[in-house]
Amino acid sequence: MAKKVKKAVILLSGGLDSATTLAIAREFKFACFALTFRYGQKHSVEVKSAYAVAKALGAAGHKIIDIAPGAFSGSALTDSLIKVPLDRKIDSSKIPITYVPARNTIFLSYALAFAESIGAFDIFIGVNATDYSGYPDCRPEYIKAFEKMANLATAAAVQKKGKFKINTPIIKMSKAQIIKIGIWLGVDYSLTHSCYNPAKTGRPCGRCDSCRLRLKGFAQAGFEDPLNYAKR
Amino acid sequence: MAKKVKKAVILLSGGLDSATTLAIAREFKFACFALTFRYGQKHSVEVKSAYAVAKALGAAGHKIIDIAPGAFSGSALTDSLIKVPLDRKIDSSKIPITYVPARNTIFLSYALAFAESIGAFDIFIGVNATDYSGYPDCRPEYIKAFEKMANLATAAAVQKKGKFKINTPIIKMSKAQIIKIGIWLGVDYSLTHSCYNPAKTGRPCGRCDSCRLRLKGFAQAGFEDPLNYAKR
Repeated sequence: MAKKVKKAVILLSGGLDSATTLAIAREFKFACFALTFRYGQKHSVEVKSAYAVAKALGAAGHKIIDIAPGAFSGSALTDSLIKVPLDRKIDSSKIPITYVPARNTIFLSYALAFAESIGAFDIFIGVNATDYSGYPDCRPEYIKAFEKMANLATAAAVQKKGKFKINTPIIKMSKAQIIKIGIWLGVDYSLTHSCYNPAKTGRPCGRCDSCRLRLKGFAQAGFEDPLNYAKR
Repeated sequence: MAKKVKKAVILLSGGLDSATTLAIAREFKFACFALTFRYGQKHSVEVKSAYAVAKALGAAGHKIIDIAPGAFSGSALTDSLIKVPLDRKIDSSKIPITYVPARNTIFLSYALAFAESIGAFDIFIGVNATDYSGYPDCRPEYIKAFEKMANLATAAAVQKKGKFKINTPIIKMSKAQIIKIGIWLGVDYSLTHSCYNPAKTGRPCGRCDSCRLRLKGFAQAGFEDPLNYAKR
Protein backbone atom coordinates (compact mmCIF):
# COMPACT_ATOMS: atom_id res chain seq x y z
CA MET A 1 0.00 0.00 0.00
CA ALA A 2 1.29 3.43 -0.89
CA LYS A 3 2.25 5.61 2.07
CA LYS A 4 -0.42 8.18 2.76
CA VAL A 5 0.78 11.71 2.13
CA LYS A 6 0.44 13.95 5.18
CA LYS A 7 -1.37 17.20 4.66
CA ALA A 8 -0.38 20.55 6.13
CA VAL A 9 -1.96 23.99 6.16
CA ILE A 10 0.51 26.81 5.46
CA LEU A 11 -0.27 30.44 6.26
CA LEU A 12 1.00 32.25 3.20
CA SER A 13 1.01 36.03 3.09
CA GLY A 14 3.11 36.17 -0.05
CA GLY A 15 6.09 37.58 1.82
CA LEU A 16 9.61 36.25 2.15
CA ASP A 17 9.09 34.46 5.46
CA SER A 18 5.91 32.61 4.54
CA ALA A 19 7.22 31.64 1.09
CA THR A 20 10.29 30.10 2.73
CA THR A 21 8.08 28.35 5.27
CA LEU A 22 6.03 26.83 2.45
CA ALA A 23 9.23 25.60 0.78
CA ILE A 24 10.34 24.02 4.06
CA ALA A 25 6.97 22.28 4.53
CA ARG A 26 7.25 20.96 0.98
CA GLU A 27 10.77 19.73 1.75
CA PHE A 28 9.26 17.80 4.68
CA LYS A 29 7.06 16.04 2.05
CA PHE A 30 3.77 17.52 3.19
CA ALA A 31 0.94 18.03 0.73
CA CYS A 32 0.72 21.79 1.30
CA PHE A 33 -2.58 23.66 1.47
CA ALA A 34 -1.83 27.37 1.47
CA LEU A 35 -4.13 29.88 3.17
CA THR A 36 -4.04 33.61 2.43
CA PHE A 37 -6.14 36.47 3.79
CA ARG A 38 -7.47 39.68 2.38
CA TYR A 39 -8.15 41.70 5.51
CA GLY A 40 -8.16 45.26 4.31
CA GLN A 41 -4.35 45.52 4.35
CA LYS A 42 -2.98 48.50 2.41
CA HIS A 43 -0.48 46.12 0.82
CA SER A 44 -3.14 43.77 -0.54
CA VAL A 45 -0.89 43.35 -3.58
CA GLU A 46 0.71 40.61 -1.45
CA VAL A 47 -2.29 38.37 -2.19
CA LYS A 48 -1.21 38.20 -5.84
CA SER A 49 2.28 37.27 -4.69
CA ALA A 50 0.85 34.53 -2.50
CA TYR A 51 -0.96 33.11 -5.49
CA ALA A 52 2.22 33.11 -7.58
CA VAL A 53 4.31 31.63 -4.77
CA ALA A 54 1.78 28.84 -4.05
CA LYS A 55 1.73 27.96 -7.72
CA ALA A 56 5.52 28.07 -8.16
CA LEU A 57 6.09 25.88 -5.10
CA GLY A 58 3.49 23.33 -6.15
CA ALA A 59 0.98 23.75 -3.34
CA ALA A 60 -1.74 21.08 -3.36
CA GLY A 61 -4.31 23.80 -2.78
CA HIS A 62 -4.60 27.51 -2.12
CA LYS A 63 -7.51 29.15 -0.34
CA ILE A 64 -7.95 32.92 -0.13
CA ILE A 65 -10.22 34.08 2.67
CA ASP A 66 -11.80 37.51 2.92
CA ILE A 67 -11.97 38.99 6.37
CA ALA A 68 -14.57 41.72 6.67
CA PRO A 69 -12.90 45.14 6.64
CA GLY A 70 -13.25 46.72 10.05
CA ALA A 71 -12.48 43.53 11.93
CA PHE A 72 -8.99 44.89 12.35
CA SER A 73 -8.68 48.54 13.25
CA GLY A 74 -6.14 50.86 14.82
CA SER A 75 -3.17 49.62 12.81
CA ALA A 76 -1.02 51.45 10.28
CA LEU A 77 -1.46 48.42 8.01
CA THR A 78 -5.25 48.74 7.83
CA ASP A 79 -6.18 52.30 8.79
CA SER A 80 -5.87 54.95 6.10
CA LEU A 81 -5.47 57.65 8.77
CA ILE A 82 -2.38 56.03 10.31
CA LYS A 83 0.82 56.28 8.29
CA VAL A 84 3.23 53.36 7.92
CA PRO A 85 6.46 54.51 9.63
CA LEU A 86 9.43 54.91 7.30
CA ASP A 87 13.21 54.98 7.79
CA ARG A 88 12.92 54.27 11.51
CA LYS A 89 15.42 52.48 13.68
CA ILE A 90 13.74 49.15 14.44
CA ASP A 91 13.51 48.45 18.15
CA SER A 92 11.89 45.04 18.56
CA SER A 93 11.43 45.60 22.30
CA LYS A 94 8.65 48.03 21.40
CA ILE A 95 5.47 47.07 19.56
CA PRO A 96 5.11 49.29 16.50
CA ILE A 97 2.01 50.95 15.08
CA THR A 98 1.95 48.34 12.29
CA TYR A 99 0.79 45.78 14.88
CA VAL A 100 -2.66 44.47 13.91
CA PRO A 101 -4.81 43.42 16.90
CA ALA A 102 -4.98 39.64 17.25
CA ARG A 103 -4.15 39.12 13.58
CA ASN A 104 -2.13 35.93 13.91
CA THR A 105 -4.71 34.55 16.32
CA ILE A 106 -7.47 35.01 13.76
CA PHE A 107 -5.26 33.62 10.97
CA LEU A 108 -4.25 30.57 13.02
CA SER A 109 -7.87 29.99 14.04
CA TYR A 110 -8.94 29.83 10.41
CA ALA A 111 -5.96 27.55 9.71
CA LEU A 112 -7.11 25.30 12.54
CA ALA A 113 -10.67 25.10 11.15
CA PHE A 114 -9.30 24.42 7.67
CA ALA A 115 -6.87 21.79 8.96
CA GLU A 116 -9.57 19.99 10.92
CA SER A 117 -11.90 19.97 7.93
CA ILE A 118 -9.31 18.44 5.57
CA GLY A 119 -7.85 16.02 8.13
CA ALA A 120 -4.52 17.82 8.57
CA PHE A 121 -2.79 18.17 11.93
CA ASP A 122 0.18 20.28 10.89
CA ILE A 123 -0.06 24.04 10.53
CA PHE A 124 2.93 26.06 9.37
CA ILE A 125 3.37 29.75 10.10
CA GLY A 126 6.37 31.85 9.13
CA VAL A 127 6.67 33.83 12.33
CA ASN A 128 10.13 35.02 13.23
CA ALA A 129 11.29 36.33 16.58
CA THR A 130 14.82 37.36 15.60
CA ASP A 131 14.84 39.91 12.77
CA TYR A 132 11.33 41.10 13.48
CA SER A 133 9.26 44.11 14.39
CA GLY A 134 8.38 43.22 17.97
CA TYR A 135 4.90 41.78 17.42
CA PRO A 136 3.71 39.78 20.46
CA ASP A 137 2.03 37.17 18.27
CA CYS A 138 5.33 36.12 16.70
CA ARG A 139 6.91 34.84 19.91
CA PRO A 140 7.46 31.16 20.77
CA GLU A 141 5.47 31.40 24.03
CA TYR A 142 2.45 32.67 22.10
CA ILE A 143 2.68 29.87 19.53
CA LYS A 144 2.97 27.27 22.28
CA ALA A 145 -0.14 28.66 24.02
CA PHE A 146 -2.08 28.62 20.74
CA GLU A 147 -1.08 25.01 20.10
CA LYS A 148 -2.21 23.97 23.57
CA MET A 149 -5.55 25.73 23.06
CA ALA A 150 -5.98 24.12 19.62
CA ASN A 151 -5.68 20.66 21.11
CA LEU A 152 -8.46 21.42 23.58
CA ALA A 153 -10.67 23.19 21.03
CA THR A 154 -11.18 20.57 18.40
CA ALA A 155 -13.05 17.32 17.96
CA ALA A 156 -10.15 15.75 16.04
CA ALA A 157 -7.75 16.31 18.95
CA VAL A 158 -10.21 15.40 21.70
CA GLN A 159 -11.09 12.17 19.88
CA LYS A 160 -7.33 11.41 19.67
CA LYS A 161 -7.30 11.28 15.88
CA GLY A 162 -4.09 13.29 16.09
CA LYS A 163 -2.43 16.21 17.79
CA PHE A 164 -2.30 19.62 16.20
CA LYS A 165 1.15 21.05 15.79
CA ILE A 166 1.90 24.68 14.99
CA ASN A 167 5.17 24.43 13.08
CA THR A 168 7.40 27.51 13.11
CA PRO A 169 10.51 26.38 11.23
CA ILE A 170 12.03 29.85 10.85
CA ILE A 171 11.16 31.31 14.25
CA LYS A 172 14.75 31.45 15.47
CA MET A 173 16.50 32.13 12.17
CA SER A 174 18.01 35.44 11.15
CA LYS A 175 16.63 37.00 7.99
CA ALA A 176 19.89 36.12 6.22
CA GLN A 177 19.54 32.45 7.22
CA ILE A 178 15.94 32.37 6.01
CA ILE A 179 16.99 33.75 2.62
CA LYS A 180 19.90 31.31 2.26
CA ILE A 181 17.70 28.31 3.07
CA GLY A 182 14.97 29.61 0.77
CA ILE A 183 17.37 29.98 -2.14
CA TRP A 184 18.71 26.49 -1.50
CA LEU A 185 15.11 25.16 -1.55
CA GLY A 186 14.35 26.94 -4.80
CA VAL A 187 12.20 29.84 -3.61
CA ASP A 188 11.91 32.49 -6.31
CA TYR A 189 12.01 35.64 -4.20
CA SER A 190 11.15 37.78 -7.20
CA LEU A 191 7.59 36.47 -6.74
CA THR A 192 7.34 37.55 -3.10
CA HIS A 193 6.18 40.84 -1.65
CA SER A 194 7.19 42.19 1.76
CA CYS A 195 6.50 45.95 1.64
CA TYR A 196 3.91 47.52 3.97
CA ASN A 197 3.80 50.69 1.93
CA PRO A 198 3.95 49.82 -1.77
CA ALA A 199 3.49 52.30 -4.59
CA LYS A 200 0.27 52.04 -6.60
CA THR A 201 2.23 49.97 -9.10
CA GLY A 202 3.01 47.48 -6.32
CA ARG A 203 6.67 48.51 -6.27
CA PRO A 204 8.14 48.19 -2.75
CA CYS A 205 9.15 51.37 -0.91
CA GLY A 206 12.45 50.19 0.55
CA ARG A 207 11.81 52.33 3.63
CA CYS A 208 9.23 50.59 5.86
CA ASP A 209 10.33 48.16 8.60
CA SER A 210 9.51 45.17 6.45
CA CYS A 211 11.53 46.38 3.43
CA ARG A 212 14.45 47.36 5.66
CA LEU A 213 14.58 43.99 7.41
CA ARG A 214 14.39 42.26 4.06
CA LEU A 215 17.10 44.36 2.42
CA LYS A 216 19.39 43.93 5.43
CA GLY A 217 18.80 40.18 5.26
CA PHE A 218 19.71 39.95 1.59
CA ALA A 219 22.83 42.06 2.17
CA GLN A 220 23.92 39.84 5.07
CA ALA A 221 23.19 36.67 3.10
CA GLY A 222 25.31 37.97 0.23
CA PHE A 223 22.52 37.87 -2.36
CA GLU A 224 20.87 40.52 -4.45
CA ASP A 225 17.19 41.12 -3.67
CA PRO A 226 15.45 40.61 -7.04
CA LEU A 227 12.73 43.17 -6.29
CA ASN A 228 12.72 46.58 -7.95
CA TYR A 229 12.62 49.04 -5.05
CA ALA A 230 11.48 52.62 -5.34
CA LYS A 231 14.35 53.60 -3.05
CA ARG A 232 17.19 51.69 -1.44
CA MET B 1 -14.70 62.66 38.04
CA ALA B 2 -17.27 60.22 36.78
CA LYS B 3 -16.26 56.59 36.99
CA LYS B 4 -15.26 55.30 33.59
CA VAL B 5 -17.62 52.65 32.28
CA LYS B 6 -15.87 49.37 31.51
CA LYS B 7 -16.49 47.93 28.08
CA ALA B 8 -17.07 44.28 27.29
CA VAL B 9 -17.43 42.31 24.07
CA ILE B 10 -20.28 39.77 24.15
CA LEU B 11 -20.54 36.93 21.64
CA LEU B 12 -24.22 36.95 20.78
CA SER B 13 -25.63 34.23 18.55
CA GLY B 14 -29.22 35.20 19.25
CA GLY B 15 -29.85 32.01 21.22
CA LEU B 16 -30.97 31.53 24.78
CA ASP B 17 -27.52 31.12 26.30
CA SER B 18 -25.88 34.13 24.69
CA ALA B 19 -28.90 36.37 25.37
CA THR B 20 -28.72 35.45 29.05
CA THR B 21 -24.96 36.04 29.02
CA LEU B 22 -25.52 39.53 27.61
CA ALA B 23 -28.07 40.25 30.34
CA ILE B 24 -25.56 39.11 32.98
CA ALA B 25 -22.79 41.32 31.52
CA ARG B 26 -25.22 44.23 31.58
CA GLU B 27 -26.06 43.45 35.21
CA PHE B 28 -22.31 43.68 35.94
CA LYS B 29 -22.54 47.28 34.58
CA PHE B 30 -20.45 46.71 31.49
CA ALA B 31 -21.04 48.77 28.36
CA CYS B 32 -21.81 45.79 26.15
CA PHE B 33 -20.61 45.50 22.57
CA ALA B 34 -22.31 42.52 20.98
CA LEU B 35 -20.67 40.52 18.20
CA THR B 36 -22.60 38.19 15.89
CA PHE B 37 -21.46 36.04 12.97
CA ARG B 38 -22.99 35.01 9.70
CA TYR B 39 -20.91 31.96 8.82
CA GLY B 40 -23.11 30.05 6.41
CA GLN B 41 -25.17 28.48 9.19
CA LYS B 42 -28.45 26.96 8.02
CA HIS B 43 -30.16 28.71 10.91
CA SER B 44 -28.98 32.18 9.89
CA VAL B 45 -32.36 33.44 11.07
CA GLU B 46 -30.59 33.63 14.46
CA VAL B 47 -28.78 36.77 13.26
CA LYS B 48 -32.12 38.64 13.25
CA SER B 49 -32.75 37.38 16.77
CA ALA B 50 -29.33 38.62 17.84
CA TYR B 51 -30.17 42.06 16.50
CA ALA B 52 -33.48 42.13 18.40
CA VAL B 53 -31.88 40.82 21.61
CA ALA B 54 -29.01 43.35 21.48
CA LYS B 55 -31.51 46.16 21.00
CA ALA B 56 -33.88 44.97 23.73
CA LEU B 57 -31.06 44.59 26.25
CA GLY B 58 -29.59 48.01 25.44
CA ALA B 59 -26.22 46.95 24.01
CA ALA B 60 -23.85 49.89 23.47
CA GLY B 61 -23.02 48.48 20.05
CA HIS B 62 -23.67 45.49 17.83
CA LYS B 63 -21.34 44.31 15.12
CA ILE B 64 -22.27 41.59 12.64
CA ILE B 65 -19.32 39.92 10.94
CA ASP B 66 -19.50 37.85 7.79
CA ILE B 67 -17.28 34.81 7.69
CA ALA B 68 -16.64 33.57 4.18
CA PRO B 69 -18.78 30.49 3.46
CA GLY B 70 -16.52 27.49 3.15
CA ALA B 71 -14.33 28.44 6.10
CA PHE B 72 -16.35 25.95 8.10
CA SER B 73 -17.10 22.66 6.45
CA GLY B 74 -18.04 19.16 7.44
CA SER B 75 -20.73 20.17 9.92
CA ALA B 76 -24.47 19.53 9.85
CA LEU B 77 -24.90 23.22 10.69
CA THR B 78 -23.15 24.45 7.54
CA ASP B 79 -23.17 21.63 5.01
CA SER B 80 -26.34 21.13 2.99
CA LEU B 81 -25.43 17.46 2.41
CA ILE B 82 -25.33 16.64 6.13
CA LYS B 83 -28.67 16.50 7.93
CA VAL B 84 -29.21 17.98 11.38
CA PRO B 85 -30.01 14.99 13.63
CA LEU B 86 -33.51 14.98 15.07
CA ASP B 87 -35.15 13.29 18.09
CA ARG B 88 -31.87 11.74 19.22
CA LYS B 89 -30.88 10.89 22.75
CA ILE B 90 -28.25 13.50 23.60
CA ASP B 91 -25.02 11.95 24.82
CA SER B 92 -22.64 14.77 25.67
CA SER B 93 -19.71 12.35 25.96
CA LYS B 94 -19.82 12.09 22.17
CA ILE B 95 -19.20 14.99 19.81
CA PRO B 96 -22.17 15.30 17.45
CA ILE B 97 -22.21 16.02 13.73
CA THR B 98 -23.40 19.57 14.48
CA TYR B 99 -19.89 20.33 15.76
CA VAL B 100 -18.34 23.09 13.62
CA PRO B 101 -14.53 22.87 13.35
CA ALA B 102 -12.83 25.50 15.53
CA ARG B 103 -15.91 27.72 15.51
CA ASN B 104 -15.60 29.14 19.01
CA THR B 105 -11.88 29.66 18.45
CA ILE B 106 -12.57 31.81 15.40
CA PHE B 107 -15.39 33.65 17.18
CA LEU B 108 -13.26 34.33 20.26
CA SER B 109 -10.35 35.45 18.07
CA TYR B 110 -12.54 38.06 16.41
CA ALA B 111 -13.82 39.07 19.84
CA LEU B 112 -10.23 39.49 20.99
CA ALA B 113 -9.36 41.69 18.01
CA PHE B 114 -12.53 43.74 18.55
CA ALA B 115 -11.88 44.05 22.30
CA GLU B 116 -8.31 45.18 21.78
CA SER B 117 -9.37 47.76 19.21
CA ILE B 118 -12.02 49.33 21.49
CA GLY B 119 -9.96 49.10 24.70
CA ALA B 120 -12.02 46.34 26.33
CA PHE B 121 -10.48 43.50 28.32
CA ASP B 122 -13.60 41.52 29.11
CA ILE B 123 -15.07 39.06 26.65
CA PHE B 124 -18.27 37.18 27.47
CA ILE B 125 -19.24 33.90 25.84
CA GLY B 126 -22.32 31.87 26.68
CA VAL B 127 -20.73 28.44 26.59
CA ASN B 128 -22.27 25.82 28.79
CA ALA B 129 -20.77 22.50 29.81
CA THR B 130 -23.76 21.05 31.65
CA ASP B 131 -26.86 20.83 29.44
CA TYR B 132 -24.87 20.81 26.22
CA SER B 133 -24.16 18.82 23.12
CA GLY B 134 -20.61 17.71 23.89
CA TYR B 135 -18.68 20.32 21.92
CA PRO B 136 -15.00 20.43 22.95
CA ASP B 137 -14.87 24.22 22.62
CA CYS B 138 -17.45 24.72 25.35
CA ARG B 139 -15.35 23.22 28.15
CA PRO B 140 -13.68 25.22 30.96
CA GLU B 141 -10.20 23.86 30.13
CA TYR B 142 -10.55 25.14 26.57
CA ILE B 143 -11.67 28.59 27.70
CA LYS B 144 -8.76 28.79 30.16
CA ALA B 145 -6.27 27.88 27.42
CA PHE B 146 -7.76 30.49 25.09
CA GLU B 147 -7.50 33.15 27.79
CA LYS B 148 -3.85 32.32 28.42
CA MET B 149 -3.11 32.50 24.71
CA ALA B 150 -4.96 35.83 24.40
CA ASN B 151 -2.74 37.38 27.04
CA LEU B 152 0.37 36.38 25.09
CA ALA B 153 -1.06 37.35 21.69
CA THR B 154 -1.90 40.98 22.15
CA ALA B 155 -0.08 44.29 22.47
CA ALA B 156 -2.54 45.51 25.12
CA ALA B 157 -1.76 42.56 27.39
CA VAL B 158 1.99 42.49 26.74
CA GLN B 159 2.19 46.23 27.48
CA LYS B 160 0.32 45.57 30.76
CA LYS B 161 -2.57 47.85 29.90
CA GLY B 162 -4.83 45.14 31.24
CA LYS B 163 -5.43 41.41 31.26
CA PHE B 164 -7.95 39.79 28.96
CA LYS B 165 -10.61 37.78 30.68
CA ILE B 166 -12.91 35.30 28.95
CA ASN B 167 -16.03 35.41 31.11
CA THR B 168 -18.26 32.35 31.05
CA PRO B 169 -20.96 33.16 33.59
CA ILE B 170 -23.28 30.30 32.64
CA ILE B 171 -20.71 27.57 32.00
CA LYS B 172 -21.73 25.47 35.00
CA MET B 173 -25.44 26.25 35.08
CA SER B 174 -28.19 23.90 34.05
CA LYS B 175 -30.45 25.09 31.25
CA ALA B 176 -33.22 25.59 33.82
CA GLN B 177 -30.98 27.82 35.96
CA ILE B 178 -29.97 29.86 32.92
CA ILE B 179 -33.64 30.44 32.04
CA LYS B 180 -34.58 31.39 35.60
CA ILE B 181 -31.74 33.91 35.87
CA GLY B 182 -32.53 35.28 32.43
CA ILE B 183 -36.18 35.83 33.29
CA TRP B 184 -35.16 37.53 36.52
CA LEU B 185 -32.82 39.82 34.53
CA GLY B 186 -35.57 40.69 32.05
CA VAL B 187 -34.52 38.65 29.01
CA ASP B 188 -37.41 38.38 26.56
CA TYR B 189 -36.94 34.80 25.34
CA SER B 190 -39.55 35.29 22.64
CA LEU B 191 -36.86 37.26 20.78
CA THR B 192 -34.30 34.44 20.91
CA HIS B 193 -33.72 31.61 18.48
CA SER B 194 -32.10 28.29 19.34
CA CYS B 195 -33.15 25.87 16.60
CA TYR B 196 -30.54 24.29 14.29
CA ASN B 197 -33.17 23.20 11.82
CA PRO B 198 -35.80 25.93 11.48
CA ALA B 199 -38.62 25.90 8.93
CA LYS B 200 -38.38 28.42 6.10
CA THR B 201 -40.61 30.68 8.16
CA GLY B 202 -37.99 30.61 10.94
CA ARG B 203 -40.25 28.51 13.17
CA PRO B 204 -38.19 26.16 15.41
CA CYS B 205 -38.44 22.43 14.80
CA GLY B 206 -38.63 21.25 18.42
CA ARG B 207 -36.67 18.13 17.47
CA CYS B 208 -32.97 19.04 17.09
CA ASP B 209 -30.58 18.84 20.06
CA SER B 210 -30.77 22.56 20.60
CA CYS B 211 -34.59 22.69 20.67
CA ARG B 212 -34.75 19.64 22.92
CA LEU B 213 -32.27 21.02 25.45
CA ARG B 214 -34.16 24.31 25.44
CA LEU B 215 -37.60 22.75 25.89
CA LYS B 216 -36.33 20.50 28.68
CA GLY B 217 -34.82 23.56 30.37
CA PHE B 218 -38.06 25.53 30.24
CA ALA B 219 -40.00 22.54 31.57
CA GLN B 220 -37.55 22.07 34.46
CA ALA B 221 -37.58 25.79 35.24
CA GLY B 222 -41.38 25.76 35.34
CA PHE B 223 -41.85 28.33 32.60
CA GLU B 224 -43.55 28.20 29.24
CA ASP B 225 -41.21 28.63 26.25
CA PRO B 226 -42.71 31.58 24.34
CA LEU B 227 -41.59 30.24 20.95
CA ASN B 228 -44.06 28.73 18.54
CA TYR B 229 -42.65 25.29 17.77
CA ALA B 230 -43.52 23.25 14.72
CA LYS B 231 -43.62 20.15 16.92
CA ARG B 232 -43.21 19.60 20.64
